[in-house]
Amino acid sequence: MQNLLNRAVLLRSRPRGEPKLSDFELVESPVPSPGEGEFLCRTIYLSLDPYMRGRMNDVKSYAQPAELGKPMVGGAVSEVVASNNPAFPTGSFVVGSTGWQAYAVSRGAGVRKLDPKAAPLSTALGVLGMPGMTAYVGLLDIGQPKPGETIVVSAAAGAVGSVVGQIAKIRGCRAVGVAGSEAKCEFVVKELGFDACVNHRSEPLVPALQEACPKGIDVYFDNVGGDVLAAVLRLLNPFARIPLCGLISQYNAAELPPGPNLFPLLANRALVRGFIVSDHGDRFADFYRDCVPWLREGRVRYREDVVVGLENAPEAFIGLLRGRNFGKLVVRVGADPTAKSC
Amino acid sequence: MQNLLNRAVLLRSRPRGEPKLSDFELVESPVPSPGEGEFLCRTIYLSLDPYMRGRMNDVKSYAQPAELGKPMVGGAVSEVVASNNPAFPTGSFVVGSTGWQAYAVSRGAGVRKLDPKAAPLSTALGVLGMPGMTAYVGLLDIGQPKPGETIVVSAAAGAVGSVVGQIAKIRGCRAVGVAGSEAKCEFVVKELGFDACVNHRSEPLVPALQEACPKGIDVYFDNVGGDVLAAVLRLLNPFARIPLCGLISQYNAAELPPGPNLFPLLANRALVRGFIVSDHGDRFADFYRDCVPWLREGRVRYREDVVVGLENAPEAFIGLLRGRNFGKLVVRVGADPTAKSC
Repeated sequence: MQNLLNRAVLLRSRPRGEPKLSDFELVESPVPSPGEGEFLCRTIYLSLDPYMRGRMNDVKSYAQPAELGKPMVGGAVSEVVASNNPAFPTGSFVVGSTGWQAYAVSRGAGVRKLDPKAAPLSTALGVLGMPGMTAYVGLLDIGQPKPGETIVVSAAAGAVGSVVGQIAKIRGCRAVGVAGSEAKCEFVVKELGFDACVNHRSEPLVPALQEACPKGIDVYFDNVGGDVLAAVLRLLNPFARIPLCGLISQYNAAELPPGPNLFPLLANRALVRGFIVSDHGDRFADFYRDCVPWLREGRVRYREDVVVGLENAPEAFIGLLRGRNFGKLVVRVGADPTAKSC
Repeated sequence: MQNLLNRAVLLRSRPRGEPKLSDFELVESPVPSPGEGEFLCRTIYLSLDPYMRGRMNDVKSYAQPAELGKPMVGGAVSEVVASNNPAFPTGSFVVGSTGWQAYAVSRGAGVRKLDPKAAPLSTALGVLGMPGMTAYVGLLDIGQPKPGETIVVSAAAGAVGSVVGQIAKIRGCRAVGVAGSEAKCEFVVKELGFDACVNHRSEPLVPALQEACPKGIDVYFDNVGGDVLAAVLRLLNPFARIPLCGLISQYNAAELPPGPNLFPLLANRALVRGFIVSDHGDRFADFYRDCVPWLREGRVRYREDVVVGLENAPEAFIGLLRGRNFGKLVVRVGADPTAKSC
């Protein structure tokens, strides 16, 4: 392995506001050798997710900040290419938090083996991974949708939102998306089977949502906060539930903006509950048991936005925070030997 | 009864912003006679509560608005002075929604009989009535405090807040109040036994709360919203719970102000849940069973702010929304034959 070159994207500076390309740095170094009990991962797919923006800040939140001068944190699918750990032999495929780099050494903590026959490897970063699990736990455990209820989800064409609406349909609900372009809205309705989708960039939100939700809103799975959340609050039904999954609209804000007036929560005895998927690991087996057949039967579909080359990760990530991606954003860092075609 | 004169405070106009005396009108009329199955209530104590401000607006919220030209809505303790209903004989004492008037006819819907030996009659409007029950349900069922946790409550010297903190102490928690004057803060700590109380009018809120809550905030029982809520959010502990009981700070606002940024809910996986006590009638028996002995044993204490004369109700109510009352605000409309002294 000593002859191979590793490549990594380091966090070079902490952005104030929107990240710039100069906040990242691509560096090369020798590929590390696995020590006792360790194994070497060759990254195939790197996941890019909105939560990473928070890790770039020097603020202790639910997780430690990413360190300056170290590879950016992130989940990835890898092939084990050298191993001193019998649980992760050479040739196995794994998913874990190995960061924005081409090679990484692991001891196996937080790493899960993948069966490449069960589903395409990249799905371990999306529909069958953290985003899918986030949708499952947030919608079912916190949102507690009942058949016939209306579920609204923002960032509906994204990795989490697309799964939220499809599970809502499986549970007999009306699923309404909010997305940022006509093309995304069309995809959400025609490909994913949502009942309606509102384009928040072109339509006045409250009347458009009202038309899409003639019986009001029972569950709002929020990925974005901001104007969409404020509009939804005006259409809540009594005893509505709002799983608060993300606030993407403010992740680049230098100063936190005010939030929505909370009177509708009072009048409707509604609930807002923040959640972090990593608290809900005990539900992964249920999620996987349900979601693999949904995927096989075509009841849950997904779209990926694949960027090629680790060097393009910073630009793709900046675009993600602007809503430029279309589907689950992944970076193909290295060859996928299980893929049918390149 | 035809010789007696009834007096009532009608809602004359719907205020925009703070209510004015001219939004109310005191009128006289003959005392009504109870028909078949009805009984006549002579009002002793009228309750004044912040929720009444919402009823003055022409907006359907969780309850219908008060009607223009009709007596203002409100709970009261009364003596039955004539009866065609054997369940409520003459001479019995009752609490019910009989409105801002000296006499009212009822069929018994929503009316509860009182035992004047169990506790002073006026407590049926405060510590043993709707406000006490609100504190009990909001703190225990929604806040779910655990021993050793820190509970903060706003409007801590008021009818609801004072009970919240005392129940928190009974449950082995640290109880911290927020109130609007030094005198109220002193009362909350010295008379009610809270561990600390912050004067939101004189102290910079975040550092004062931080000092009062060295281990952070686990439950915030919110009666006021606004700046206090925003400050509390900065000090939340992971998995904190916020029973949202009221938003008094904005009840007089002509336009709803923005709310707090909700990022702390996400980072701390915290919950905000609006609630209305009338949804929780099934818990009244538990509340009463617990609270009567607490009161007898002096573990829950209360303070009343008694205004004399129905004609003074509008001014007292306007003062309530400004925080001028000190303790549970009631209007003595008629003589209390069970009181030891006047």
